[in-house]
Amino acid sequence: MQFSSQLLENAVNEFAKLPGIGKKTALRLVLHLIKKEEGEVEQFSHALSKMRNEIKFCRRCYNVSDTEICNICINPMRKQHFICVVENIRDVIAIESTQQFNGLYHVLGGIISPLDGVGPEQLTIDALINRIKTEEIEEIIFALNPNIQGDTTIYYIGRKLKDVKVKITTIARGIAFGGELEYADEMTLAKSITNRIPVENYITAS
Amino acid sequence: MQFSSQLLENAVNEFAKLPGIGKKTALRLVLHLIKKEEGEVEQFSHALSKMRNEIKFCRRCYNVSDTEICNICINPMRKQHFICVVENIRDVIAIESTQQFNGLYHVLGGIISPLDGVGPEQLTIDALINRIKTEEIEEIIFALNPNIQGDTTIYYIGRKLKDVKVKITTIARGIAFGGELEYADEMTLAKSITNRIPVENYITAS
Repeated sequence: MQFSSQLLENAVNEFAKLPGIGKKTALRLVLHLIKKEEGEVEQFSHALSKMRNEIKFCRRCYNVSDTEICNICINPMRKQHFICVVENIRDVIAIESTQQFNGLYHVLGGIISPLDGVGPEQLTIDALINRIKTEEIEEIIFALNPNIQGDTTIYYIGRKLKDVKVKITTIARGIAFGGELEYADEMTLAKSITNRIPVENYITAS
Repeated sequence: MQFSSQLLENAVNEFAKLPGIGKKTALRLVLHLIKKEEGEVEQFSHALSKMRNEIKFCRRCYNVSDTEICNICINPMRKQHFICVVENIRDVIAIESTQQFNGLYHVLGGIISPLDGVGPEQLTIDALINRIKTEEIEEIIFALNPNIQGDTTIYYIGRKLKDVKVKITTIARGIAFGGELEYADEMTLAKSITNRIPVENYITAS
């Protein structure tokens, strides 16, 4: 692309560094911003730098937070003895949006994946074990993606907790609502048969 | 979406104001930026504000520019008597990238479209007429999108120039390279037959 303006080119190049944004999309976004009021663009760029400079990670659960301890951990209305273990911040947002879970979280910061060079020591697993031992946790619920890495992570943490009295569960896996049996992969279908639930449970749960 | 951080939410909301970026994409981009160095995010937001605050529109051709007169207009190597008339800045970038045109541009800032409430007076048509009359222009080349609004704009400007001695042309319209006849729309195919070119011209031009 040939630009007649260095300012324009710099802005486009910066946008194009973002994941999934190519040069053409970057140009479209920048040309959109050119048409906006200076104040609006200022507000946009200010929100970004402020977010990056001031955001923290909760010292207890490693979720993003504006304060040392996040507002989920600090909320006395939430059940303090239940921890939902997730891979990343996005998963916390997804689960919070369902409004079905009223306990605390623990963000691992990834999952064990030797092929990608991610071992247990790069994750917040030690902090999780420590929380479970010191905070009188009743149940930890794994909400990890259903794949080999997720299962490995569950197995690894489960082994570490074999002498600790805590209930360990994982979110249900099966055919998604709106999904069709004939298009489901064999693994999911097989698991959904093995882990079938009595209809009375199903009806009361939904 | 439920965020546990106001800083995060603000940044996501700002990104989601951009065209074609929904909440989920915005979140993905913001989480990408969280992982980057503070300096990189600062550079990104700085490039945006600087671009918006300092960018100018060339007083001669209305292209974006870092200076009062853009570096295309000011370049003595470019043919000063040829003007390529385009709808917007994106078109200038597209044509410049082909490296096939060595004249000047004139950015209309839109095209005549009564349905969208865009009349000739909102565009830089008067400035174009003035340039043609004062700058000894030999030829103006319309590079507008081939549709009703584009044709209306060409017709309108053509009428205004009927007493001015200047050659008026438009970019060729026809079947695109790599396109297939059977999938071309009737209008394009019809025009490409009416405006057929002798094979010797075609071969020397390509």
